[in-house]
Amino acid sequence: MEKLVTIQYDQYANEIIIINQTKLPGNLEYKTLKTLEDVWIAINHLEVRGAPLIGITAAYGLAMHIKKCHLTDKGLILNEINKAKVYLGSARPTAVNLENALKNMTEKIAEFPSAHAIQVNLIERAFSLHDEDKKISECIGHFGADILPENGTVLTYCNAGLLATGNHLGTALAPVYTALSLGKKVEVYACETRPVLQGARLTTFELVNAGVPTTLIADNMIGWLLSTKKIDAIFVGCDRVAKNGDFANKIGTHTLAVLAKAYRVPFYVCTPSTTIDFDAASKEDIVIEYRDAEEIRSMWYKKPMVDNRVNIINPSFDCTGAEFVTGFITERGIIQPPFTRECFR
Amino acid sequence: MEKLVTIQYDQYANEIIIINQTKLPGNLEYKTLKTLEDVWIAINHLEVRGAPLIGITAAYGLAMHIKKCHLTDKGLILNEINKAKVYLGSARPTAVNLENALKNMTEKIAEFPSAHAIQVNLIERAFSLHDEDKKISECIGHFGADILPENGTVLTYCNAGLLATGNHLGTALAPVYTALSLGKKVEVYACETRPVLQGARLTTFELVNAGVPTTLIADNMIGWLLSTKKIDAIFVGCDRVAKNGDFANKIGTHTLAVLAKAYRVPFYVCTPSTTIDFDAASKEDIVIEYRDAEEIRSMWYKKPMVDNRVNIINPSFDCTGAEFVTGFITERGIIQPPFTRECFR
Repeated sequence: MEKLVTIQYDQYANEIIIINQTKLPGNLEYKTLKTLEDVWIAINHLEVRGAPLIGITAAYGLAMHIKKCHLTDKGLILNEINKAKVYLGSARPTAVNLENALKNMTEKIAEFPSAHAIQVNLIERAFSLHDEDKKISECIGHFGADILPENGTVLTYCNAGLLATGNHLGTALAPVYTALSLGKKVEVYACETRPVLQGARLTTFELVNAGVPTTLIADNMIGWLLSTKKIDAIFVGCDRVAKNGDFANKIGTHTLAVLAKAYRVPFYVCTPSTTIDFDAASKEDIVIEYRDAEEIRSMWYKKPMVDNRVNIINPSFDCTGAEFVTGFITERGIIQPPFTRECFR
Repeated sequence: MEKLVTIQYDQYANEIIIINQTKLPGNLEYKTLKTLEDVWIAINHLEVRGAPLIGITAAYGLAMHIKKCHLTDKGLILNEINKAKVYLGSARPTAVNLENALKNMTEKIAEFPSAHAIQVNLIERAFSLHDEDKKISECIGHFGADILPENGTVLTYCNAGLLATGNHLGTALAPVYTALSLGKKVEVYACETRPVLQGARLTTFELVNAGVPTTLIADNMIGWLLSTKKIDAIFVGCDRVAKNGDFANKIGTHTLAVLAKAYRVPFYVCTPSTTIDFDAASKEDIVIEYRDAEEIRSMWYKKPMVDNRVNIINPSFDCTGAEFVTGFITERGIIQPPFTRECFR
């Protein structure tokens, strides 16, 4: 069992080291990000992915970049921070964590007395965000593990494991890892998650790496699975939760949620409370990222598997109504919508 | 628009010419089957697939083989027919058409007076089966087209088009082609159909080849599609129907059916009445073929996309309960279970 370090900030070299997740499971390759553009590319090209990890990467990226700029004028540094924030924020639209991390990094930053103090504080904030991620994973793990029986079977979707966070348990897989550490037995079914196969490539990889009995199915087998096997709980991660409990997650989550309801399998969204977007009233306010048709046409095949004349649609996420969710497992316990800012003060 | 000839029997050369469908859509390659083993491989390796086409291929295969044997003794020829029938029947277990075609080919064959008469009759029976397939497609197309509005949007799954039959309209796509020929407008959404991608590779190929506006989605996008777009009807093919209306079709059909019911989209099974298995009371009596995990792990990728330690389960079909079906579109009209032998006399 190899320890997987999804992200690390080397303060002395002022560089970020990530696992290039597009190479998994074939090659466990670490990659060093040295410029703001490297960071943007890492997020946009899915070298790092998963809502929490995207946020952490952007936070370190911003801190690293500002340190590299060696600006001594406060006005100039604030200007550069603003530019970098807009640039990084454009890397992916759906996960609120990217936006939130950049907001947290820069909130009241102008109140610091000097360019140097700002630069130092950005690094502190990035470390603190990463640390917070660890604590959140532990709490989600704790609340989620309580749900599982002594011998549990879990179904998960996409990757919301430690590879989607800052090395630590993950969100949707946190209950699994925690239950195991408490001596429970857990078996996991993972969906391959077309088109980028995060379930097939990443979830199964980190689970078997941790010794968890894992079975992979194609996404279209969910109906077959739920109608023929006993599944105790479905755990998924999430990229943005609206105030009414509607949420966006990897494309296919909606399909899974409808099937879970039809087969009365408990369906839990595992998410830091910071993934709640209080500016979104419902799914109507969530922007869905559409990605290149090439991901479906030929990305993993090297050659096109689809005739060139065919139109291909590739929403990277979908929205699921709150009515499909048994509960939101957060660091504050298992909660139910509506969510208001006041609840989380 | 190129005319696609899925299967042809060359009576003079005594050879079968098929499109090798594993090469589509990249290469439209015709392949000649000269031996019984060639035929078994073509069926087992999915060079020909689709319940009706499997039946036609087996029928021609049996006739071709017996002709090649040049047996003049009636006992010997009947013995050889029996051996070949068992062998071909083992190529794939789920589609009833394979079993039925072989049964039709051999029923009362011993009543023919001589080895020669038997051999000649087998060829006649195979041609007649192929011809019957054409008539059935036309009828299904006619009844299915009636359902569609002047501007219709259809969702289909896997490939139950002309590539799944003996060149002619198909089953699930027959209503689409027929509606178009009647001057209606039809747009089609196709699901890619993991792991072998019959939807992505074959359905979209034959539809754009025929000039039909076609959009491909990944299988996990069905929930997103039905919750965001208006779909007038879902048409699927089928491999075996039980007497109570439960049916087996490509893995993922069950998932689609549950979603269709949740979103109240009419869900039609397009099938020759010969696909009804009167020996199967319900889905409990339908044998599901499990295929090699390699199809999911690495078949199309050339390199494994899944860690070797991961268990992979690969049922090639699933069963869907009759309660999900709006109607069975057959050559005899749109019918409802229960199905009895008496209804089809």
